[in-house]
Amino acid sequence: MEATNVAILGASGYTGMELVRLLLAHPAAQITAATSRTNAGKRIAEVFPRFGGLSGAELIFIEPDMDTVVASGATIAFLALPHGTAAEYATSLLAKGLRVIDLSADFRLNEAALYEEFYGETHPAPELLETSVYGLPEIHGSAIESAQLVASPGCYPTSILLPLIPLLREGLIDPTTIVANSMSGVSGAGRKADLSLLFVECNESVRAYGLPKHRHLSEIEQELSLASGQKVTITFVPHLIPVNRGICTSTTATLTGDMNAVEQALCSAYQNSPFVRLLGRGICPDTKNVTRTNFIDIGWQHDERTGRLLLLSAEDNLGKGAASQAVQSFNLMSGLEEGIGLETV
Amino acid sequence: MEATNVAILGASGYTGMELVRLLLAHPAAQITAATSRTNAGKRIAEVFPRFGGLSGAELIFIEPDMDTVVASGATIAFLALPHGTAAEYATSLLAKGLRVIDLSADFRLNEAALYEEFYGETHPAPELLETSVYGLPEIHGSAIESAQLVASPGCYPTSILLPLIPLLREGLIDPTTIVANSMSGVSGAGRKADLSLLFVECNESVRAYGLPKHRHLSEIEQELSLASGQKVTITFVPHLIPVNRGICTSTTATLTGDMNAVEQALCSAYQNSPFVRLLGRGICPDTKNVTRTNFIDIGWQHDERTGRLLLLSAEDNLGKGAASQAVQSFNLMSGLEEGIGLETV
Amino acid sequence: MEATNVAILGASGYTGMELVRLLLAHPAAQITAATSRTNAGKRIAEVFPRFGGLSGAELIFIEPDMDTVVASGATIAFLALPHGTAAEYATSLLAKGLRVIDLSADFRLNEAALYEEFYGETHPAPELLETSVYGLPEIHGSAIESAQLVASPGCYPTSILLPLIPLLREGLIDPTTIVANSMSGVSGAGRKADLSLLFVECNESVRAYGLPKHRHLSEIEQELSLASGQKVTITFVPHLIPVNRGICTSTTATLTGDMNAVEQALCSAYQNSPFVRLLGRGICPDTKNVTRTNFIDIGWQHDERTGRLLLLSAEDNLGKGAASQAVQSFNLMSGLEEGIGLETV
Amino acid sequence: MEATNVAILGASGYTGMELVRLLLAHPAAQITAATSRTNAGKRIAEVFPRFGGLSGAELIFIEPDMDTVVASGATIAFLALPHGTAAEYATSLLAKGLRVIDLSADFRLNEAALYEEFYGETHPAPELLETSVYGLPEIHGSAIESAQLVASPGCYPTSILLPLIPLLREGLIDPTTIVANSMSGVSGAGRKADLSLLFVECNESVRAYGLPKHRHLSEIEQELSLASGQKVTITFVPHLIPVNRGICTSTTATLTGDMNAVEQALCSAYQNSPFVRLLGRGICPDTKNVTRTNFIDIGWQHDERTGRLLLLSAEDNLGKGAASQAVQSFNLMSGLEEGIGLETV
Repeated sequence: MEATNVAILGASGYTGMELVRLLLAHPAAQITAATSRTNAGKRIAEVFPRFGGLSGAELIFIEPDMDTVVASGATIAFLALPHGTAAEYATSLLAKGLRVIDLSADFRLNEAALYEEFYGETHPAPELLETSVYGLPEIHGSAIESAQLVASPGCYPTSILLPLIPLLREGLIDPTTIVANSMSGVSGAGRKADLSLLFVECNESVRAYGLPKHRHLSEIEQELSLASGQKVTITFVPHLIPVNRGICTSTTATLTGDMNAVEQALCSAYQNSPFVRLLGRGICPDTKNVTRTNFIDIGWQHDERTGRLLLLSAEDNLGKGAASQAVQSFNLMSGLEEGIGLETV
Repeated sequence: MEATNVAILGASGYTGMELVRLLLAHPAAQITAATSRTNAGKRIAEVFPRFGGLSGAELIFIEPDMDTVVASGATIAFLALPHGTAAEYATSLLAKGLRVIDLSADFRLNEAALYEEFYGETHPAPELLETSVYGLPEIHGSAIESAQLVASPGCYPTSILLPLIPLLREGLIDPTTIVANSMSGVSGAGRKADLSLLFVECNESVRAYGLPKHRHLSEIEQELSLASGQKVTITFVPHLIPVNRGICTSTTATLTGDMNAVEQALCSAYQNSPFVRLLGRGICPDTKNVTRTNFIDIGWQHDERTGRLLLLSAEDNLGKGAASQAVQSFNLMSGLEEGIGLETV
Repeated sequence: MEATNVAILGASGYTGMELVRLLLAHPAAQITAATSRTNAGKRIAEVFPRFGGLSGAELIFIEPDMDTVVASGATIAFLALPHGTAAEYATSLLAKGLRVIDLSADFRLNEAALYEEFYGETHPAPELLETSVYGLPEIHGSAIESAQLVASPGCYPTSILLPLIPLLREGLIDPTTIVANSMSGVSGAGRKADLSLLFVECNESVRAYGLPKHRHLSEIEQELSLASGQKVTITFVPHLIPVNRGICTSTTATLTGDMNAVEQALCSAYQNSPFVRLLGRGICPDTKNVTRTNFIDIGWQHDERTGRLLLLSAEDNLGKGAASQAVQSFNLMSGLEEGIGLETV
Repeated sequence: MEATNVAILGASGYTGMELVRLLLAHPAAQITAATSRTNAGKRIAEVFPRFGGLSGAELIFIEPDMDTVVASGATIAFLALPHGTAAEYATSLLAKGLRVIDLSADFRLNEAALYEEFYGETHPAPELLETSVYGLPEIHGSAIESAQLVASPGCYPTSILLPLIPLLREGLIDPTTIVANSMSGVSGAGRKADLSLLFVECNESVRAYGLPKHRHLSEIEQELSLASGQKVTITFVPHLIPVNRGICTSTTATLTGDMNAVEQALCSAYQNSPFVRLLGRGICPDTKNVTRTNFIDIGWQHDERTGRLLLLSAEDNLGKGAASQAVQSFNLMSGLEEGIGLETV
């Protein structure tokens, strides 16, 4: 397999680290540049001892200088950067002819106004919003293949969208009744020195946060509206739980169709999607079965007493919710099978 | 303070152990009998080394023989037993003149038929359902004071009922739209040798379970219906998370009143309830602030975009959700201040 | 019980928080001042929601101004501050007539030179070293009673010293062969925003650190030498493990006496020490039995094949290893029973 | 790469599950039989949902019938069974011409008497002890290549032996002074329904256990004695800590050589061993860097004050300490590079 040269920008956060892990082992990718302001000058294996001894882990982190990134020969760049910064670098890299997979929120929304509403800042590169592709391979696979700029979805959105989209497309649930509760591992909050993320603060603790208008709602509702054909607004309650990795999402909505149609819609939507595992009715997915993988597990149940449908999903927030999903897009962009480099469990 | 003699039946499970902890230190209680089939003949401090050196911890566990319990001089008995067994012992103890605080589900429901529907068995002592009092002190305090038989609430119900009851009483939310998602620590599943409760199975794992008709729904809906004045049916999604203790519940419902009325209803309902801490609007309670206490922390938020109210609560499943709430009832039954012996954090 | 007015300096770290917890509930103490640079102006219950609703938790954190502390009426001050700062404040408070219980390392060593060797700085107040008392109540109880300045021991030292001192006094082990391995919960590293203390970094991780010359060795060897009557030098290997609280220490040394003498020495040394629980031969203490208490549990075993004695101890690094031990000293200094306010488990 | 047919006996414990994980993905192995008394008749993916969707995971667990195993075409069998049972099956499989990699203790000791001393039973197949090879590839690699019966080492022994053997061979430490303290994740205790292994019992807990004569001492001392040329007896203190996977071992011994010689001995011993990562002097390995891998990380430090050498190692108890090390032996037995199928981190 011929390898594509890739760059990882912002390679020393948790998502960046997971991208490094996956791409070091990827049979059709070669990391030519990895940037990190804090770790520039150090070897990857020095910053992440886990990668010691691996081929490629002697690469040295560089400052995020776009010319150096281009000079490394990379043709596709992964951006694991804060929003705002990502747009700036993406603009520069696209102009230099690279294709970009951005894991920030900068290019996920179709409208700059929505970005401003949810992120509190004027969009830094609104002209790119038209061409960027929302990087959910199971939904926008063919557009991803030829995209110059892929906006890889947020962790919560992935876990909420995949179960809901087929049902909204078929009109099987009432879109005004959707309530999603998610529980996320602490890595979802990023790798930053913050009192609230200390071991002692998070361990033996559970709490909701970010209510009532978590930023991820913007992309969730955009994609649900696309599927539904009407404007969809939902309630979303995220929680922080003491695990390193994993998101468990429980979504409820009033059922308007019947359960057979629900199951058929899910099976039909994902029959060719190797990373969506439909567990079946009454089966509750467990995050421990998906951590460090690109799988999303989906179960469902009928709450006959209330007429609601229960949708249950589990994914790894750093995997299908971030890094491995970005690699899945990379595979599609490179004309490879979407699962290359994502097989291990 | 004169001490009441108490017995604890089923004292070697997690709830039993917490009852022992609280009652050993209680200034107005004296444990005269503690039963445990598996540990009969052993000293409390031997089975629970944590209690070593405490006054009273040299007491020896006995077999659950009701005559011996009565002979110990106990006048109030705490039952931390499986349902079914609890009813049998309660019947016997009541007949012998003891007052009973039952922590099982046996006397929580007003109707034997409902018990049969949710627990799959004919009720073992339906004649007692009429006199038993649902032991939520903030709601049924005065009935508890004079009760012979208190049915202490389940852990999930406590966390769901306390935020909702004042709002349903005032008609501030639409009772047909209630969805409750709870996350419980593993001790809620009991102290039993079961593969699924092993450390390695639960650690780094989150999952929903018990869908769609968890047994606790029966008592939840009974009490909500009482508050609402109409039959209330809700959706309830419990999850197991890797903490020892603590329940975090997020409840959503369509707001029919306004937020001022919501806050007023909560404040007014709990102004004299020392163990309900109203955190205020936009504040998310954290289980780490309530573990090992009798507190329930409640926050709320208005989701203006969808018209829903978000209710957030946190309690200790073994504390306010079980043992300390039972001690709170004991205090009321004994004519004491309800907080005696429950002050430490 | 008449209450002594106390001040807590540095009240918003983990040790400070534990002091607040214990002293809020202490029947013979009244917190009149609590200082915190970062939280000055906020109520205790605001910074630590766990304490919400408790009597006294409405007290407002103040800046660490010694005049204000004195003006609050405090007669005993607890210092939970970094070394160096502690000495400065202690000097000032002692001059103003307060008694001081210092939980830093500043006054634990008898010699300023040793301080300089281990802490890399000239001792800030060497004149106080002569009068300060090493605050291990089981060993220096009567000196603590009348002390103006108590230097409360470090967490590791407490867990290592209490099992060893009686045996060294009796000459039952070879002091040149002592090796201590300790495992500490993450709270031992303090409440500071540091990448290495993040949940994701500590969870599912174990490692040694601080080798070969951890600062605590200075006080450990000072006290062991005192007990032994000769200069003792030991090997100490601390490890960080993913629990919030608790230290487990396993110490080995070549046995020179016999096991009966070992057991007799321990029993005799601690027969009047309510917080030392001697579990017996072959019993391994578990940190879960001592967290949030002032107990230290000690077990032992004879490794006949190698002629070594194994000493096993467990304590709470924030409890017997810090805050509750300081309160135990406070009780002695106040002429109270040493266990007042430390009864709960 | 041509695939070897392999069988896994006892495939539903934690070690068995890890063997399944590694061998499903191994490019030169094909699982033809997997036995499990408790799960016979179920698909692998049903018992372990993590493996759902993987090629090979539809295989159905069978009863441990040796004829069926042979009929499956397997030529090498992995035994992840309790001791005793393992010997029985191994005898049968060897007689039928299969090669066996046994992960139990049954064939690790050269002398049946030692087995009886440490395991309390007469050895079930003493005639095989002469031909079995202790499966530590870094030490006995060439013997493993041609072995019919490989006795894969225990988890603790691997972490203790690899740092020590080169030093004992060179006479750089005093073999009478060795003390090893290990901390193991809970999976090391196996997948069995036992109260003491419940989440609530293990979480927030640390304790030593199995003192003073843990069974693993027998194989540890056998191999150390071989390296040293004299009978070596050591002290070993294992601890249980709340992580799923990982062993951290800290070993101390009096240094008789100098530090340069120590470093040279280690480097020279492992220069061709891709799975031994020598971190260097003063570097403490962390289990989080080796979980789910076949790496063992080794650091060291000189305790000049006491003249002791500190050896620090970290491995995954289910990886290098069990399953992946067994696969490493499988690779050698199959004439493959030893790292095939063990590359992912």
